[in-house]
Amino acid sequence: MPASTEFEAANKQYAATFDKGTLPLPPGRKVAVVACMDARLDPAKALGLSEGDAHVIRNAGGRTVDALRSVVISQQLLGTREIVIVHHTDCGMLTFSDEQLRAKVRRDLGEDVDHISFLPFGDVKQSVLDDVQVLRKSPLVLDVPISGYIYDVTSGKIERVDG
Amino acid sequence: MPASTEFEAANKQYAATFDKGTLPLPPGRKVAVVACMDARLDPAKALGLSEGDAHVIRNAGGRTVDALRSVVISQQLLGTREIVIVHHTDCGMLTFSDEQLRAKVRRDLGEDVDHISFLPFGDVKQSVLDDVQVLRKSPLVLDVPISGYIYDVTSGKIERVDG
Repeated sequence: MPASTEFEAANKQYAATFDKGTLPLPPGRKVAVVACMDARLDPAKALGLSEGDAHVIRNAGGRTVDALRSVVISQQLLGTREIVIVHHTDCGMLTFSDEQLRAKVRRDLGEDVDHISFLPFGDVKQSVLDDVQVLRKSPLVLDVPISGYIYDVTSGKIERVDG
Repeated sequence: MPASTEFEAANKQYAATFDKGTLPLPPGRKVAVVACMDARLDPAKALGLSEGDAHVIRNAGGRTVDALRSVVISQQLLGTREIVIVHHTDCGMLTFSDEQLRAKVRRDLGEDVDHISFLPFGDVKQSVLDDVQVLRKSPLVLDVPISGYIYDVTSGKIERVDG
């Protein structure tokens, strides 16, 4: 059975008791979270977010350079005034280099992706520090509080590494 | 109090009863979700995802063209073999044009962002259909099941529009 069919069944249950139908579009807690797409990280549960609280931007690694379009929209049009970055232990981004992934794509898909940076990193603390700086230095990002965390996939704990 | 401080307090509670510490890195249900960053949408709750189940990629609008780096990593390195796209009613992306946001950024931040497309759309069903096609036609994306949904922020229900 495809996951989508299972999602439809699960959604029927969610909607049956849904009581959040009057929330405004702008995030109530005026914060945007930038986090990794990793399956083991549930930002809402790990950070205590309810529907309506926060923008949650997620990509491979939780890289902020790949989140800039969304951050600008979040700040300029929807009023968020804080950013929280969450990377995590045992991240897939620690397991490859651009050269390796480009070679795999060339071999398996027959496509040249030498122009794409997949944004891997070698150290998760450094990736958080780097990604805080990307936002702090961007002229497109407002001067708002920005903090960075590492989520430990074995304990469920976040550790602040910058802020 | 900054949201980050509240997140740290909420995370202490989450970690206190955390029992997911042995999950593998690759998503257990072999699916990647591409969804909007909207605060009112909690993909895990709305689709019935537990920690470890699925990659969740989120950006402004849930635009797949802005998710390609993450999708390639998800498929090539972490074995996902299905994609589910979730856009939603009352999306902020329906409320502006590229020209309007570029003018606001020029006026308020003094920056020229004419080279950036912020990927707004005028119709949420069409945006889902377009974004399914972006993935189906990309030579970087495997030939896997791809389905598209609209999430209704007033009812919590998803409606399938392609798949």
